[in-house]
Amino acid sequence: MAATGKKVGVVLSGCGVLDGAEIHEATLTLLALDRAGAQVRAMAPDIAQRQVVDHSKGEPVPGESRRVLAEAARIARGKISNLANVSAAELDALVFPGGLGAAKNLSTFAVEGQEMSVEPEVERLIREMHQAGKPMGFICIAPVLAARVLGGRRPRLTIGNDPATAAALEAMGAQHVECSVEEVAVDEQNKIVSTPAYMLGPSISPVARGIDRLVDKVLELA
Amino acid sequence: MAATGKKVGVVLSGCGVLDGAEIHEATLTLLALDRAGAQVRAMAPDIAQRQVVDHSKGEPVPGESRRVLAEAARIARGKISNLANVSAAELDALVFPGGLGAAKNLSTFAVEGQEMSVEPEVERLIREMHQAGKPMGFICIAPVLAARVLGGRRPRLTIGNDPATAAALEAMGAQHVECSVEEVAVDEQNKIVSTPAYMLGPSISPVARGIDRLVDKVLELA
Repeated sequence: MAATGKKVGVVLSGCGVLDGAEIHEATLTLLALDRAGAQVRAMAPDIAQRQVVDHSKGEPVPGESRRVLAEAARIARGKISNLANVSAAELDALVFPGGLGAAKNLSTFAVEGQEMSVEPEVERLIREMHQAGKPMGFICIAPVLAARVLGGRRPRLTIGNDPATAAALEAMGAQHVECSVEEVAVDEQNKIVSTPAYMLGPSISPVARGIDRLVDKVLELA
Repeated sequence: MAATGKKVGVVLSGCGVLDGAEIHEATLTLLALDRAGAQVRAMAPDIAQRQVVDHSKGEPVPGESRRVLAEAARIARGKISNLANVSAAELDALVFPGGLGAAKNLSTFAVEGQEMSVEPEVERLIREMHQAGKPMGFICIAPVLAARVLGGRRPRLTIGNDPATAAALEAMGAQHVECSVEEVAVDEQNKIVSTPAYMLGPSISPVARGIDRLVDKVLELA
């Protein structure tokens, strides 16, 4: 239990794969951290979601609006911080589960691709963590955040096996690493760990094995 | 992998502990079933939620309405059936994760206590499963459903350690069993397995151990 007491932030981007945080990836991250004895701090930016998607139909619901923080609180069982109030000084490590919320709410990747921007407070926290030499984990589609913010450092990142998505990642300065769903890529220099999770799938148990490895490695680097 | 191919229904009651399915319990159920090689069929009734709760504040949001099926689909990543269209003949076993959705949407326990009624299609499916001699698992607060529908069979059920909740369970005909979060109660005669999960907590990893055991036992009985 070397991780006991390590303070690990988990950044949630809503609640649901199509407009927020991927629920399985987020829950599996919390599980792996709790098993390792880490002290988890769930957080989300208090901003409006880009859209609300009816997950039973896969279609946006026109006119409906939800807040990222309030929806993310569903995954965190109410215990959640506004990310704007969290600084790297309070954390030993930071993990970003995936879900389209990372590409729609935490950034504009879903609509702007490699021209994307990152939500300002999320960008600030990633920069602070990197400058402090503290490790970060990026799951599924979330590595686009690391590529945009830290592209100048040529981070080695996973993003699954879709050529267009990998090309966008590289266009932002990252080096794309091919990786199976059960494995992780480790960028020792930038202290960044990533895993493709549901970018590859195909089901929850291999995704869990990849996330378990990501959390182990992030805690080891912390 | 004795469970390979066994068809197991998972009944979701929304998405979020305060107004729907408890997200961790639901995800951990899906994980344990997938690991065992079961074929999962997620389902929910297509009804309105009793209320919508802002999970960052713990308070109901007046005037907002959501559908149980559409919200449950977030946990199921879009792959979900309308429970009204599912019969026991299509399943080998059935599991109910907890969350207040079991007491607000699948039943009226949250407002009527031991005078509660169960949503008609949910009641039908529980009766069909029981009559067919197929096993069911009830997690957290969900055992109230078994108590109401099958109280005449004196089912042995967990519900945590709150005396008033246990008394309500017994008033409906069940026998309350004290049980730690990592253990399960097995009613061999009624083929019902239950575990207290977040009725006891305190965190996701002991809850996961209890749910792993529940799923193992349900599959063994199937």
